[in-house]
Amino acid sequence: MSSTKGQVIKCKAAVAWEAGKPLVIEEVEVAPPQANEVRVKILFTALCHTDVYFWEAKGQTPLFPRIFGHEAGGVVESVGEGVTDLKEGDHVLPVFTGECGECRHCKSEESNMCDLLRINTDRGVMISDGNTRFSKNGQPIYHFVGTSTFSEYTVVHVGCLAKINPCAPLDTVCVLSCGISTGLGATLNVAKPTKGSSVAIFGLGAVGLAAAEGARIAGASRIIGIDLNSNRFEEAKKFGVNEFVNPKEYDKPVQQVIAEMTNGGVDRSVECTGSIQAMISAFECVHDGWGVAVLVGVPNKDDSFKTHPMQFLNEKTLKGTFFGNYRTRSDIPNVVEQYLNKELELEKFITHSVSFSEINKAFDYMLNGESIRCVIRMEHD
Amino acid sequence: MSSTKGQVIKCKAAVAWEAGKPLVIEEVEVAPPQANEVRVKILFTALCHTDVYFWEAKGQTPLFPRIFGHEAGGVVESVGEGVTDLKEGDHVLPVFTGECGECRHCKSEESNMCDLLRINTDRGVMISDGNTRFSKNGQPIYHFVGTSTFSEYTVVHVGCLAKINPCAPLDTVCVLSCGISTGLGATLNVAKPTKGSSVAIFGLGAVGLAAAEGARIAGASRIIGIDLNSNRFEEAKKFGVNEFVNPKEYDKPVQQVIAEMTNGGVDRSVECTGSIQAMISAFECVHDGWGVAVLVGVPNKDDSFKTHPMQFLNEKTLKGTFFGNYRTRSDIPNVVEQYLNKELELEKFITHSVSFSEINKAFDYMLNGESIRCVIRMEHD
Repeated sequence: MSSTKGQVIKCKAAVAWEAGKPLVIEEVEVAPPQANEVRVKILFTALCHTDVYFWEAKGQTPLFPRIFGHEAGGVVESVGEGVTDLKEGDHVLPVFTGECGECRHCKSEESNMCDLLRINTDRGVMISDGNTRFSKNGQPIYHFVGTSTFSEYTVVHVGCLAKINPCAPLDTVCVLSCGISTGLGATLNVAKPTKGSSVAIFGLGAVGLAAAEGARIAGASRIIGIDLNSNRFEEAKKFGVNEFVNPKEYDKPVQQVIAEMTNGGVDRSVECTGSIQAMISAFECVHDGWGVAVLVGVPNKDDSFKTHPMQFLNEKTLKGTFFGNYRTRSDIPNVVEQYLNKELELEKFITHSVSFSEINKAFDYMLNGESIRCVIRMEHD
Repeated sequence: MSSTKGQVIKCKAAVAWEAGKPLVIEEVEVAPPQANEVRVKILFTALCHTDVYFWEAKGQTPLFPRIFGHEAGGVVESVGEGVTDLKEGDHVLPVFTGECGECRHCKSEESNMCDLLRINTDRGVMISDGNTRFSKNGQPIYHFVGTSTFSEYTVVHVGCLAKINPCAPLDTVCVLSCGISTGLGATLNVAKPTKGSSVAIFGLGAVGLAAAEGARIAGASRIIGIDLNSNRFEEAKKFGVNEFVNPKEYDKPVQQVIAEMTNGGVDRSVECTGSIQAMISAFECVHDGWGVAVLVGVPNKDDSFKTHPMQFLNEKTLKGTFFGNYRTRSDIPNVVEQYLNKELELEKFITHSVSFSEINKAFDYMLNGESIRCVIRMEHD
């Protein structure tokens, strides 16, 4: 049994005191896990755009001080009452959205949008008692999407933890907690291209590259990358992208460019930018009769998706996905196995690595568009 | 061998000489079938809204004189060169859209939108030579959607004929050529509700009732009919509809009414009106996580489908279908078998029957909203 079980743990965490200001490494107190909660020792964490978006807090109600971070790998330190699926020492990936196993969504087998543990970016507390498990000198520090992995220890609801094969290197599989699984699952679980088919990927950031990786794994023969930044095309080749379109280089809609390249349209498309125009293009560029478009990128709240309804009547399908339709507990361990089986390649997503004390560099790499993923090493004493 | 094979046949046909004017039973000449064509003796035909729409010719380029009719059952009289799948005496249903078996769509297994024989409402001639097979005193009479079944004999491309079980009564299964299969297939092939699920049907005309019949066959437990005309609700009960919503009776959007009735939304919806507002409601009323909406009704050409893209990102799916995704030659014979197996009930769709000489009565029944389907008996001499 862990010597810290049931005790408050003092450890280092990167605290965001104010919107947009550099994180500060602080000594914080992490309370023991309550019922259905697990305290996890984080070993590696990565930075995702969503952390940056809520840290900048430009469009939302600011909630500070807060500990960000939601892509990570760690080891269970101790478990709270009622937790039977996990025990001290288990290797886990915390995930920003959970799987309670009891609600209509968890029971439907078609959905991963758990009623109890669905992502909630406004909540900064644990759902059981409405309190935080983090504090500094008695001042509560808010959680972020139930994970808060920019801390040496964090407390997570058991339904938000994927128990993974302990053979998997946590410094690599930690990137499966969010963006990479989102893109990968959008292709493999939702678009489902067949071998030899054509797939258009809108947006060649981390999620789009993961969607391309899914198309590569599925055996698609034409993987067309669409991005306004042609500098991304060289890197994208590593992820199976073998044709490129920069919409800025054409004086006609990109859906028309793609239809002309593919004798009427691609078999599948995956939209990973969140731009409403890209969403419409991604839908309209699929072939009639069988084309499927999948929306991944998150739109602005006032956006309106508009198309002519005959686009649907010509037997095109439009779907959206959340976290690539993966269920946290049931499915993510299998994605780790795909990596261990060398089917899925993860190393190429990890372009940078920094120590925890340098965490603000990870923000710089992302803001400058230099990194796909920067992994942060926690370096416990 | 048929004594008429290779000969011009003189027979009765109901000719539309002008838009919106009563059809006139005339003696016409029907030329022999050319390569890949089949001449069919029509025994029963039914009237569908699409006939009426093109007969009224309010929105399209008028093409007259023309022989309408596209829901029918008949027997092969003779076949043209190269036809090997059909022979004299075979029972067939002509269908307004075909299956060449050779194009990308026919080979895809996901599509029924054959490149060669896809519906073309503007064409009034045979595709092989650009001529009509109908004439009167040397004046050509145009075909309609390749079927023109308001004639004792008609000439149809072999790819537009479903060869069916000769045990099937043609006076009943003739309604499977268009609307009934369209609604049925929208539910069974595209929406695919599971046993015990909830299905909303928008529009309780023939196509909507067939969609409801599909939901009944699939074992849906809640089949919610939505129509602006409450008079349709009593009849709809025969088709499995067990709850009703008339949007006029509420001061909130119908999608909200349905969401409140169903704890968040229905599992599946099928839109059979063509109204753009109904299409949007049909999509927005499905449950997040797993809901699937299917568009069947044909919109106006200037309509725009608008919704917030988060509707998709919450894992709802929107699809459209054409002819219920049935392939004419491969699938329609199996629908006839479903009827023969008593799985599918067809009699309840046939509310009226008239002799060929009374064909204009069938138009009246439809225009007055009295009929679901009126079958016209050809009564050959």
